[in-house]
Amino acid sequence: MTTTTSRLNQVDIETVGALIGAIQTEPERAQTVWSAEVRWTGGFGSESRVREFDPVPSDEPTALGGDDTAPNPVEQLLGALGNCLAVGYAANATAAGIALQDVTISLEGDLDLSTFLGLTEGHAGYDGIRATVNIDSDATTAQLEALHNKVVATSPVGHTLSRPIPVSIELG
Amino acid sequence: MTTTTSRLNQVDIETVGALIGAIQTEPERAQTVWSAEVRWTGGFGSESRVREFDPVPSDEPTALGGDDTAPNPVEQLLGALGNCLAVGYAANATAAGIALQDVTISLEGDLDLSTFLGLTEGHAGYDGIRATVNIDSDATTAQLEALHNKVVATSPVGHTLSRPIPVSIELG
Repeated sequence: MTTTTSRLNQVDIETVGALIGAIQTEPERAQTVWSAEVRWTGGFGSESRVREFDPVPSDEPTALGGDDTAPNPVEQLLGALGNCLAVGYAANATAAGIALQDVTISLEGDLDLSTFLGLTEGHAGYDGIRATVNIDSDATTAQLEALHNKVVATSPVGHTLSRPIPVSIELG
Repeated sequence: MTTTTSRLNQVDIETVGALIGAIQTEPERAQTVWSAEVRWTGGFGSESRVREFDPVPSDEPTALGGDDTAPNPVEQLLGALGNCLAVGYAANATAAGIALQDVTISLEGDLDLSTFLGLTEGHAGYDGIRATVNIDSDATTAQLEALHNKVVATSPVGHTLSRPIPVSIELG
């Protein structure tokens, strides 16, 4: 990834700055609501729709009884974390004047299927998630460590996963 | 969604049963590791890769400084939860002999952007997530409520979001 426009990291930092200014004037503008619609498509398949974008498919591997046509929900969760971190590095690097050449993030999570399969009661989710970030940049190690710490301290998906969140699931 | 094959809900319940039997014999087979790879693509864009599937794009709305070409990470997180619930309804309905005609799930989450934007310290993630499930089925209300309770008690993504999970994010 090389910077091909006059914008550092191709980030529209002026818009981010304008949003920050607007929130400083009207703090309630920081309160946002996000949404998605999911429809079951048969078997273990489903698709999620967000705003006007094309639906994104979901499935399970054949070993779990699916048709293996798409990433499964727990893999999607890892992808969401990685994408969130990518935005965080791009935003905070740009704000700090650091040019990024490349950012890649490898994610892994450990999951005991016993609860999902009804063999035990208890925690059905990930027991732990690990992300390893590789950054190609001319910045110093100290600059990259400061950038990294800022991203970890401000990641919406990272915080949603690492902290307990009220999740209400109701029949309509 | 109608059942068009001899399989109830088009679910390969035999494979799920075989997996359960294998785990009962060898409990360590329940321990699974899932992974994803994310690469920054410039600006606030990135893409996640899972196994051999095509990369799935991620972006931010223009109001947040992105190019608005794809759902953003916190929307993807809602989609992952909805897709996980869809698998749960399909699996548990099939195990209970309940035919599903249609399952749709509407998801919403509240997020204060202040921490992500560096205006405050603290929680950058969702303050709460709500999912409303609509099921079209000939099953009784009591059957659907029992199904719902089972899905909520066994959802891998639901539990990952609602409980604190160790998330390690390291520079490589």
